[in-house]
Amino acid sequence: MNSEIRKNRMTDVTLTILKSDNTPLANQEVIIEQTRHKFLFGAAAFDLIPFTSGEYEGEKKEQAEQRANKLTALLNAATLPFYWARFEPQRGKLMTVQLKNAAKWCIDRGLLVKGHPLCWHTLTADWLLSMSSAEILQAQTARIQRDVSDFRGLIDMWDVINEAVIMPVFDKYDNGITRLCKEMGRINMIKIMFEAARAENPSASLLINDFDVSPAYDILVEGCLEAGIRIDAIGIQSHMHQGYWGVEKTLKVLEQFSRFNLPIHFTETTLVSGQLMPPEIVDLNDYQVQEWPTTPEGENHQAEETILHYKTLFAHPLVEGITWWDLSDGGWLNAPAGLIRKDGSSKPAYQELLKLVKGEWWMSPAKFMTGENGEISFTGFLGEYRLICNGKTQSFSLNEPNSLVSEVQL
Amino acid sequence: MNSEIRKNRMTDVTLTILKSDNTPLANQEVIIEQTRHKFLFGAAAFDLIPFTSGEYEGEKKEQAEQRANKLTALLNAATLPFYWARFEPQRGKLMTVQLKNAAKWCIDRGLLVKGHPLCWHTLTADWLLSMSSAEILQAQTARIQRDVSDFRGLIDMWDVINEAVIMPVFDKYDNGITRLCKEMGRINMIKIMFEAARAENPSASLLINDFDVSPAYDILVEGCLEAGIRIDAIGIQSHMHQGYWGVEKTLKVLEQFSRFNLPIHFTETTLVSGQLMPPEIVDLNDYQVQEWPTTPEGENHQAEETILHYKTLFAHPLVEGITWWDLSDGGWLNAPAGLIRKDGSSKPAYQELLKLVKGEWWMSPAKFMTGENGEISFTGFLGEYRLICNGKTQSFSLNEPNSLVSEVQL
Repeated sequence: MNSEIRKNRMTDVTLTILKSDNTPLANQEVIIEQTRHKFLFGAAAFDLIPFTSGEYEGEKKEQAEQRANKLTALLNAATLPFYWARFEPQRGKLMTVQLKNAAKWCIDRGLLVKGHPLCWHTLTADWLLSMSSAEILQAQTARIQRDVSDFRGLIDMWDVINEAVIMPVFDKYDNGITRLCKEMGRINMIKIMFEAARAENPSASLLINDFDVSPAYDILVEGCLEAGIRIDAIGIQSHMHQGYWGVEKTLKVLEQFSRFNLPIHFTETTLVSGQLMPPEIVDLNDYQVQEWPTTPEGENHQAEETILHYKTLFAHPLVEGITWWDLSDGGWLNAPAGLIRKDGSSKPAYQELLKLVKGEWWMSPAKFMTGENGEISFTGFLGEYRLICNGKTQSFSLNEPNSLVSEVQL
Repeated sequence: MNSEIRKNRMTDVTLTILKSDNTPLANQEVIIEQTRHKFLFGAAAFDLIPFTSGEYEGEKKEQAEQRANKLTALLNAATLPFYWARFEPQRGKLMTVQLKNAAKWCIDRGLLVKGHPLCWHTLTADWLLSMSSAEILQAQTARIQRDVSDFRGLIDMWDVINEAVIMPVFDKYDNGITRLCKEMGRINMIKIMFEAARAENPSASLLINDFDVSPAYDILVEGCLEAGIRIDAIGIQSHMHQGYWGVEKTLKVLEQFSRFNLPIHFTETTLVSGQLMPPEIVDLNDYQVQEWPTTPEGENHQAEETILHYKTLFAHPLVEGITWWDLSDGGWLNAPAGLIRKDGSSKPAYQELLKLVKGEWWMSPAKFMTGENGEISFTGFLGEYRLICNGKTQSFSLNEPNSLVSEVQL
């Protein structure tokens, strides 16, 4: 695994540092420090909405601040919720302002923001139910056009469609999106949704996302590509409430989706630090409990499995990001699925991840002496860097895992 | 079910019978009899190959003759095997002559013949293994061109590709077709195979066929259609060695595949008349037994389930055919899956099916008296008919399930 991480995530670089007059900065001490990972380490950060919109006060606000600090200390990406039922509970009554607050907060702190999702049968708008299929299609397309346009520049990455494999056969309750998908077919529907999003933000990164990792999803992606749909990244959920997949299954899933040679995002990753959900539950949403406590033993398991999962994914050349689902306990299903406990304290998984993401996989400030020609050589993780010399700073990026020769002018 | 059968499989017809001078045949007794079903009642009839090529002698020959008679008494379609490993065990050493014998025998007896399959990873030619992917593709395409062309007029219906859902991830043993499919993708592969077959026989009916009835196959069909592949019928296997699906599952499968509005063939239907295969077996081929006897109790179950399965499928407007897999016991997996026992005697399932196919769902010779204008009215199953009057006969067809007014000239 480590050799793959070395190969796919790091680069050797020889940097020639020039003074402002374009002559080499020879025989000088400089400091190099990493400021950002290229790889996306993200989390579902739904909690930022009430926090950034000033809905918390007193102790609640302090706790939210603490969580927000832990988020920015570890991560460089955040997923914000665009569930239609909540974003537009009554037609025309939008949460645009609150979502913009949260997105701006993220961007100010160097977090890339992804919107999730633009089209999904679950948590879709109730008010679609009284419409004809043609009207639902029109409303869904218009919703995508509006939100992608409204957030352009703030959110340039979207889960366009969620769980399309099950979409037309979803039978838990009637909803407009399942109806529409049954009528027009998955691929046709995906095509229209992607095209609507693309038209409003041509430079956005557009994902398809699913929990299904069987050949059904594999074939759906193939069908979409054959139908000419431009998918920027394949989103794979890995909610492991019923137990860690293990390295073998993870590698098998990666192998299955690698053949498209498209970026892969692990969009929704969960490992619980308490009792596992019973294996007979098929739809995780069916498991409703009052209390689902985190336990010391569970937290140790969670930490071990989290590290193994992140290492497995970080080693794979096509994976470009991992999003942890629910930074804190008590989110979806009230599961102990956070990296942070309900009281705001960090679990071992948080601490161990921090050791990797800002430790083993990170270049802390380091001193170098430039040579006669102003050059220094080092090996660093892909991402953004800062060079400091005599009080002057200059930033640069390392973007590709190949030996690089580059120039930086102070 | 019966009202659906009435609606989808029968037609009311008013026939005006004309004499050779084009005047009405008034007030005359005529006999109408059905000679063929439009619906395809078929069976895997691999046994016809040694039989029609004169490989049997003595008692074996007599038994084969008996089986062949039972085949033609009940059915109007036969599936013949084109497994590449057997059809061309050494490159260029073909079984074309034997297969033509069998196909001609069928056609002479009014059986429509389907070839199965042109492309499959299981039982594909061993000698592909030493080839490059480009060579495998070339060989597979050439095989399709050759066989579809050689059998044009004898075989105009083909299972072009078999089990493509699992094809690229099949991991039981290395084979050329899995390699190729992994490399080029399912849809791309299906497209090339269908196009190769279509080019050699534009009027052939070309099927995709699979045992997978999950959304994976549904999505694959959708992907193929979106990619512009012309599929004439969707083939669905229903090998029920582990127990009858039941009406509910059958209807669910039918509903899933009905949305394409394409004909559906139940291409491989099995119900055993003995012990069920244990449920933990995933690949049916893994179940290898020396003895798997038919039992009286099992035969009664088999008969009941067979009738229910056929009634369910015959009632559905998109189903155009059902093929029973292995007419006689002792075929695939040595299973008691036949309608006929090893000793050649008929099981209850055979007798009950015969009562339906040539009884309840069949118009036996019936007398009618023509009216003043030569007309008679009756309700019949779709298919071919013969009209007999004063020693003269004339054939006619009933093809659509709507009230028909038609003329027959003697």
